[in-house]
Amino acid sequence: MATAAIVIIGDEILSGKFAEENAAFLIGELRTLGVDLKRIVVIPDELDDIAATVTEASARFDHVFTSGGVGPTHDDLTMAGIARGFGTTVVRQPELEARVRGYWGAKLDEANLRLADVPAGAELVYGKDQVWPVVAYRNVYILPGVPSLFRRKFVDIRDRFRSEPVTVARVYVDADEGQIAAVLDAVVAAHASVKIGSYPRFSEKDFRVLLTLEGRDADAVASAHAQLVERLGARVVRHEAPAST
Amino acid sequence: MATAAIVIIGDEILSGKFAEENAAFLIGELRTLGVDLKRIVVIPDELDDIAATVTEASARFDHVFTSGGVGPTHDDLTMAGIARGFGTTVVRQPELEARVRGYWGAKLDEANLRLADVPAGAELVYGKDQVWPVVAYRNVYILPGVPSLFRRKFVDIRDRFRSEPVTVARVYVDADEGQIAAVLDAVVAAHASVKIGSYPRFSEKDFRVLLTLEGRDADAVASAHAQLVERLGARVVRHEAPAST
Repeated sequence: MATAAIVIIGDEILSGKFAEENAAFLIGELRTLGVDLKRIVVIPDELDDIAATVTEASARFDHVFTSGGVGPTHDDLTMAGIARGFGTTVVRQPELEARVRGYWGAKLDEANLRLADVPAGAELVYGKDQVWPVVAYRNVYILPGVPSLFRRKFVDIRDRFRSEPVTVARVYVDADEGQIAAVLDAVVAAHASVKIGSYPRFSEKDFRVLLTLEGRDADAVASAHAQLVERLGARVVRHEAPAST
Repeated sequence: MATAAIVIIGDEILSGKFAEENAAFLIGELRTLGVDLKRIVVIPDELDDIAATVTEASARFDHVFTSGGVGPTHDDLTMAGIARGFGTTVVRQPELEARVRGYWGAKLDEANLRLADVPAGAELVYGKDQVWPVVAYRNVYILPGVPSLFRRKFVDIRDRFRSEPVTVARVYVDADEGQIAAVLDAVVAAHASVKIGSYPRFSEKDFRVLLTLEGRDADAVASAHAQLVERLGARVVRHEAPAST
């Protein structure tokens, strides 16, 4: 089972100039891949914050995906921040430099070459796109903030992250959470490997609480699901049998 | 100038069961109030993670807003996590207990009383709603995860967070970021108090880069805006004059 964190680097998100789209997209991708997303952090375009946040996530989780702060302008600090965090420097990567020169040709501005600057020791990860790789430093995959590019680049390399699938079941209940808490406690205690969530909703027509059950042991999820449906009895409005995501 | 962090506590967000709505809402509210949002963190329903994340944010920023994990079921761990982080215990708050008993009356389940459990030393913050206060521990405001409740409770107490307004201007540019990087560097260097962001867009009809300028010194924002418009000349497609948010 693999774990992951997402680090969104962007004043523009924190100040509300753009809505966050990349973590929202990656949540679904990681779930489908069977990767446990453990943390999302949105931070400003600040060197020390990038350095500290990325290195902490890198130490705690199997994969880290960053979004934003890569480009040729003054506010693009991700490469420098990651280099600082890992105690290395930013260097011009020859293979990327050749690609940048090839792409811009005679129209090249000096600033465009900043796109070839990466932390020393970074790896170039190629998927099907044989021209523009993803830059990775150790377990940190450095992706662009523009949503269309972020998606394209992640999808291009996503197969390398595939892990064990998760089984999920759902039970829709017409009751107050307080009325079902004791039953939940008992079923939770009997199924240590199953994560059970209880979510009150106030604007649904036919149920007041959604219970979700998930885990990688499909039999345990099925057992917990059956127990909940039985013990909650007539309070169960409907339920969804365990299925792999 | 006040700073803030948002801590979203919820497996249901990290696993994609529900889309994140509360941070998305609060971003706009804090911007309007003139509060600088410096960090958003989404974490699982895990005691130690709640404890560490909330106390770190509390030490670094003026205000912390948590979302989720308050309720009567086993997965509601926010109060216990915050208590653990600050080295205190969870106690039943008499004023809240009376309100819970009054609300549920004869239908009260023992589990409902968990809604009256708070970290020892927590404060009850009342806005116009004189029945259900917001629970705060030091500078941490503990809000429910259900979006309609989160909004209602934040709006009820938001006036206490009002800070200095921010002035924002925008310049829409038809150029490659590399072509304008040098001009940006110069204007940035001359306006230390103005935060200038450069955002490439690939699906807009008439511009390729959006530049945003913001700060609390309205004259400095106006000066940076004027310099950018002048130096970028014919590359400027249109621009928006400095305005308070």
